[in-house]
Amino acid sequence: MKPAIVIQTDFSRNSSSVATMYGVCQTVDPEVRVFDLTHSIPPFDIFEASHMLRNTAPFWPEGTILVSVVDPGVGTERRGCVALLSNGQYVVTPDNGSLSHVLRSIGVQAVREIDMTVNRWPTTLTCHIFHGRDVFAYTAVRLASGLIDFQGVGPAYPLEEIVTIPFDPPAYENGVFTGIIESSGPYFGLVSSSIPDRLFLDQGVQYGEVFQVEIRHRGATVYGGPVPFHKSFGYVAKGQPVLFVGATATIQLALREKNITRLYKIGAGPDWSISIRAKDS
Amino acid sequence: MKPAIVIQTDFSRNSSSVATMYGVCQTVDPEVRVFDLTHSIPPFDIFEASHMLRNTAPFWPEGTILVSVVDPGVGTERRGCVALLSNGQYVVTPDNGSLSHVLRSIGVQAVREIDMTVNRWPTTLTCHIFHGRDVFAYTAVRLASGLIDFQGVGPAYPLEEIVTIPFDPPAYENGVFTGIIESSGPYFGLVSSSIPDRLFLDQGVQYGEVFQVEIRHRGATVYGGPVPFHKSFGYVAKGQPVLFVGATATIQLALREKNITRLYKIGAGPDWSISIRAKDS
Amino acid sequence: MKPAIVIQTDFSRNSSSVATMYGVCQTVDPEVRVFDLTHSIPPFDIFEASHMLRNTAPFWPEGTILVSVVDPGVGTERRGCVALLSNGQYVVTPDNGSLSHVLRSIGVQAVREIDMTVNRWPTTLTCHIFHGRDVFAYTAVRLASGLIDFQGVGPAYPLEEIVTIPFDPPAYENGVFTGIIESSGPYFGLVSSSIPDRLFLDQGVQYGEVFQVEIRHRGATVYGGPVPFHKSFGYVAKGQPVLFVGATATIQLALREKNITRLYKIGAGPDWSISIRAKDS
Repeated sequence: MKPAIVIQTDFSRNSSSVATMYGVCQTVDPEVRVFDLTHSIPPFDIFEASHMLRNTAPFWPEGTILVSVVDPGVGTERRGCVALLSNGQYVVTPDNGSLSHVLRSIGVQAVREIDMTVNRWPTTLTCHIFHGRDVFAYTAVRLASGLIDFQGVGPAYPLEEIVTIPFDPPAYENGVFTGIIESSGPYFGLVSSSIPDRLFLDQGVQYGEVFQVEIRHRGATVYGGPVPFHKSFGYVAKGQPVLFVGATATIQLALREKNITRLYKIGAGPDWSISIRAKDS
Repeated sequence: MKPAIVIQTDFSRNSSSVATMYGVCQTVDPEVRVFDLTHSIPPFDIFEASHMLRNTAPFWPEGTILVSVVDPGVGTERRGCVALLSNGQYVVTPDNGSLSHVLRSIGVQAVREIDMTVNRWPTTLTCHIFHGRDVFAYTAVRLASGLIDFQGVGPAYPLEEIVTIPFDPPAYENGVFTGIIESSGPYFGLVSSSIPDRLFLDQGVQYGEVFQVEIRHRGATVYGGPVPFHKSFGYVAKGQPVLFVGATATIQLALREKNITRLYKIGAGPDWSISIRAKDS
Repeated sequence: MKPAIVIQTDFSRNSSSVATMYGVCQTVDPEVRVFDLTHSIPPFDIFEASHMLRNTAPFWPEGTILVSVVDPGVGTERRGCVALLSNGQYVVTPDNGSLSHVLRSIGVQAVREIDMTVNRWPTTLTCHIFHGRDVFAYTAVRLASGLIDFQGVGPAYPLEEIVTIPFDPPAYENGVFTGIIESSGPYFGLVSSSIPDRLFLDQGVQYGEVFQVEIRHRGATVYGGPVPFHKSFGYVAKGQPVLFVGATATIQLALREKNITRLYKIGAGPDWSISIRAKDS
């Protein structure tokens, strides 16, 4: 079976944009199966795109082709690329920071710039604002179908040239775990830190242990208070805060059946930090 | 062809959650086709999840595996289960009330508790908050692919132990039809009662006949007035109310091209009742 | 491989409606692949449905069956039809104006009225409000699966009887391009005119050239000012206006990383006009 394509964009599904990306794939090779990651990335939010790729990739098979299109610089000189990850998956994306998280956590073996003289949908040459359809979906399906191999994408370039978003790595020191807020979903109100479950659990943390949690935005405290660590939100009373291991194997914070994101206006990104301090440290 | 999986959740499609459920399915068996029922169930609304399953199942083939994940108790002692319906379909779900409607209207032949020592995605053992991916999607795709049969889900338990949400059954007495509001969609403004079209039509109701409709929330009247019964909304003037047989074979109320749900703030659930009285009774 | 079905509706994906359309397709022929165009057409907005079909069709293969269900007249005397387009694709839709754009831009070879005595899902005969599922999805999958051919849809009728929405064609005169606003997406803030890129570029327009743009609603000016034409939004400063060739090969207007639709409350449809005047004309 040919590898699957998994697409994320900031296009929403309200217009015909995503459906034309699917159409391009169907026109090139109807046997290639295409799936939605999400199309609700906030417009132009490259950090969120980067984070989503890291969260999703581990649950898909080797060879899967992830397409990520959050592309405010479309039509300008930024590169379009295909990255071959260390796990054997591919990411097809504008090289504008969206590879930041997979580069750190999964690793990139090689990256190639998409040669648009070859890998470009042929009937829309006057349009320069929709590489998602005309270049990224088109290149992805050509790769998935076997019409091109990785070399056929275009010329390789040094990994050091991949554009990255700078952010502090998670750390543990003197009884305090620190990291950034990776995401703070307005829908459910789950605040995801960048602190890996392993870093946390390896310190011998027990269910029921209470920590002092603080969330800061550019230095200003946005949320602070004692929070217990449990297996799940179901172990605290409705409305109470709880720390737990989230879906992406990092430490998350939430209120049970309430929305901490909205109540405290918690955002995400490199300038949102979280600290989790053991009560007795 | 292997049976299809149809998934509903309260996760939205804004995050990577649903895409990781699809990824688990693709990793286990890329031949199994997965479909969305909806991912827009209001957070924690088990009644809506229950209602949706009943509305959707009749339009899918025998053998279809419906996955329903509205799971505020995830990670606590509530059971995860697979129910074999009387029509030969399966529902994979936390046993927390989501089987209430199918139990009454379709029937359940047998139910088994998911044995998480066997039917659990193996790489996320520290995470206890996402059984949708790690247990329910994983069990569903194993069942669809033939890796396990129904017995392989885990131990059977008595049907009487299935958790149900209590609500009054529809009735007809002295010229008055009564039921609850099953759903009141904010998008289109269709108010679905639990009154089956058969119960209604078997009384000899004619198109054009006018009824006195009343909607109550915990006893307080929220909407009341005369409403004609027609084949469709197109038979009344714009903005006028109309009763008709809805998509799920129950009696519905709407305003033509207006939103009765929003105008009258009509909700749904066991504490929302509707009565439809023949004008001459 | 059997032709694909691509569905658009104004149903949203919040209810079970779309999932039951998929279920009908799966029940009739599980080999037929079904895709979403969009389900977020504003309720009852036939003009938007019409526009979407024109935008999407060119990116899908010959033989593709597009299903469009924006159907405020469901259950009344309006026709359900299948149109065979000049490019070999089909559109299955209520004949209520949704064919307006494809009729002008792609062309219709023949149209047939759906014979509901044959092409109707058999178990929901008391329901007259959901032809999307019971008639349009059902007819589409029967056509895709080969259970019926185009003749099997029902009787042909004259192309002149197709219902159309009147709107002014794009024009160029005395240095001024005129057209209507086809869409004005609230999500991204892209304003699409009906002015084809060919009409524009054939006048020798150069990147960087500045035009006087005016948008009017029923004669009243809603937006006006000088705007440069570029390959893409990335060529102007953030917040600045720019004209460019859009995804659908017409001239679009946007603000870079701002939302012109919301800022200026720009709508779309036959009573929204745009003029683009060369500065030296």
